[in-house]
Amino acid sequence: MINKIPLNEYENRIKKIKNILKEKDIDVLVAFGTEAEPQNLIYLANYWPAFETGAVVVPREGSPALVIGPESKTFAEDYSVIKKIFQVLEHRESSEPNYPNQKLDTYEEIFDFVLNGNKPKKIAISGISIIALPVHEAIINSSNSAEIIKADDILINLRMRKSRNEIILMKKSSEINLKAFEKGLNNIKPGMEEVEVAGFIVGEMFKNKAENIAITPYILSGKRTNQAISRASHKIISKNEPIQFSFGCRYGNYASSIGRPLCIGKMPKKYMELVKVGIDVQEKVISFLKPRIKAKEVFRKYWDFLGNKGYSNYFLYGPCHGTGIMECEHPFLEADSDYLLEEGMTFQIDIFLGDSEFGLRFEDGVLITSKGVEVFNSDYREVIEL
Amino acid sequence: MINKIPLNEYENRIKKIKNILKEKDIDVLVAFGTEAEPQNLIYLANYWPAFETGAVVVPREGSPALVIGPESKTFAEDYSVIKKIFQVLEHRESSEPNYPNQKLDTYEEIFDFVLNGNKPKKIAISGISIIALPVHEAIINSSNSAEIIKADDILINLRMRKSRNEIILMKKSSEINLKAFEKGLNNIKPGMEEVEVAGFIVGEMFKNKAENIAITPYILSGKRTNQAISRASHKIISKNEPIQFSFGCRYGNYASSIGRPLCIGKMPKKYMELVKVGIDVQEKVISFLKPRIKAKEVFRKYWDFLGNKGYSNYFLYGPCHGTGIMECEHPFLEADSDYLLEEGMTFQIDIFLGDSEFGLRFEDGVLITSKGVEVFNSDYREVIEL
Repeated sequence: MINKIPLNEYENRIKKIKNILKEKDIDVLVAFGTEAEPQNLIYLANYWPAFETGAVVVPREGSPALVIGPESKTFAEDYSVIKKIFQVLEHRESSEPNYPNQKLDTYEEIFDFVLNGNKPKKIAISGISIIALPVHEAIINSSNSAEIIKADDILINLRMRKSRNEIILMKKSSEINLKAFEKGLNNIKPGMEEVEVAGFIVGEMFKNKAENIAITPYILSGKRTNQAISRASHKIISKNEPIQFSFGCRYGNYASSIGRPLCIGKMPKKYMELVKVGIDVQEKVISFLKPRIKAKEVFRKYWDFLGNKGYSNYFLYGPCHGTGIMECEHPFLEADSDYLLEEGMTFQIDIFLGDSEFGLRFEDGVLITSKGVEVFNSDYREVIEL
Repeated sequence: MINKIPLNEYENRIKKIKNILKEKDIDVLVAFGTEAEPQNLIYLANYWPAFETGAVVVPREGSPALVIGPESKTFAEDYSVIKKIFQVLEHRESSEPNYPNQKLDTYEEIFDFVLNGNKPKKIAISGISIIALPVHEAIINSSNSAEIIKADDILINLRMRKSRNEIILMKKSSEINLKAFEKGLNNIKPGMEEVEVAGFIVGEMFKNKAENIAITPYILSGKRTNQAISRASHKIISKNEPIQFSFGCRYGNYASSIGRPLCIGKMPKKYMELVKVGIDVQEKVISFLKPRIKAKEVFRKYWDFLGNKGYSNYFLYGPCHGTGIMECEHPFLEADSDYLLEEGMTFQIDIFLGDSEFGLRFEDGVLITSKGVEVFNSDYREVIEL
């Protein structure tokens, strides 16, 4: 049982990127990442920064380099599969220390190194939606004449279909989530704050060797269940009110999550009806998923089914989103999703239904297989009254 | 016992900002934040985004607004003390969904609202070191003619001296950390992975009503203790090797952390010597702290003391960093720190000493008082052999 991606898989990823750079006539790719959005760095270097940001720099020929901030040297040396490491001030933490005693590197020096003394003519950046302004400026200022292009698609496309190893790690993450879910079910009591319940769940994740949470745990109760994105709070949980568990862990740097509504005691009747709709919708969406179908076709079927049930006004977004290193990553599955589902793609089936009174989420990971779909977890897809 | 900052304190913060904007002849401040760097959003709106980013927009006169991404509406409505909320595409999550069915807002509309139909002439941005490029561009594109200036100092200066309520929350966070520390001590066993020990610690934080981790828990062992920034890993913990616990939680959205080295069984002799130096240095630095002294003077004394002990080559950075909403925030305390220590400032005394073989950190929160310093935790500042 692996707990990380083997080294040769990282080498293959870099090789593929170099081929794409040659095809597109790009000299060098800079793939940016942060503590909250580490996907590019984990995918290319097995590096998940803390406090600081980072980048992987891949030239069309030769060896890549990892770029980190001033404080992460021994940390990055331990984790990164890319052994050439540069330290750049603009990747420092947001409290902006000056590091008066430290010799730091520049992007000019980095490009010089990876391009073997040549100047870049075309620099591609992945992570444009999240890149910090000073890092972007440092890249631009490193070169007077280079053209800078947005190249998020390079990494997005590579990451969309998962390898056998990636799938093993995601399934393990899903297994751990199920254990954490049961820990939560067995310990939740009326009178507890939401955060206390999160304690049982998150503790159980790490005890089962998850390396971290993949999303902040949403343990929500009462009206707060209508928050599609949220955090556990100091609200006290009562009997007979809607409760939502949504959380996920990372294992071997891969994520998955689970979402289930429940109740201590008898569910309010209107909520029970919504729960049954949620179960039906999730099962239907699972039945819609198969390779070589247009994603927006799945959306249309989902939308029709929801409409026929009379619940269109409980809709917030499409029924699936990509998953992998990030619990939520490309691609989303929406009305305008024009791509084909393919074997090896992994999604979270994420059925969120809510109105102003309450909401719920049924969520599990799935893999598109050669014939249909493999669901990572089907337990507790039922009315849960404790 | 409060578990959050009272509403009137938020109102005072906004009022102070408006006065500064008037003084500096700035029309509007945009304070940006992310999931990993939420400080500006928490400080002004009690909003800690998840997945998406956010901004608080404060005009020199009139009411402020909160800016969020497309998915966080009910979430932000529940948490934010600023009730006027706008949803802007550029604040979306990094998987860049399109939200084809949703009507979204623009920065032009936001400025129009907060400035009561007037166009901004001077826009200040706080959070320049972390602002995502598309958000920066959206702000620039919202106005043809406005001057855009970096204004991190406005919020940094306001946040530097803490209120009574802020200090209460940080002390509570420190108390919870101590409980989590003891939970870790009581449960760590040889043969466990570092992440399993993190499970006891993080679970205990939430069970004591912390709302989340403030930094990823560093449970490090062996050579890995020389990583000043790191993460708990799958490494198996052995007897008689250096172990480092460094972690912190958030309570009422305020952070503190604790750092201690320890060993199961007998400490290696050279490590024991370093531990004793760490204890001495931390106690010395505590004795150096008092109001109205130059920060760099504290650094100099620390540096001299370390040199006299013969441990200058174990140095990585200055002995203190600011703490508050972020476990690590302005100001750092370094050789070039030209500011005066003032009553109400809070620091983490953060003594990291390491070489290529191993490292350690003694860390606790402190408050600068009118007469000297109040230490949030002094327990376990000793050689810990289990």
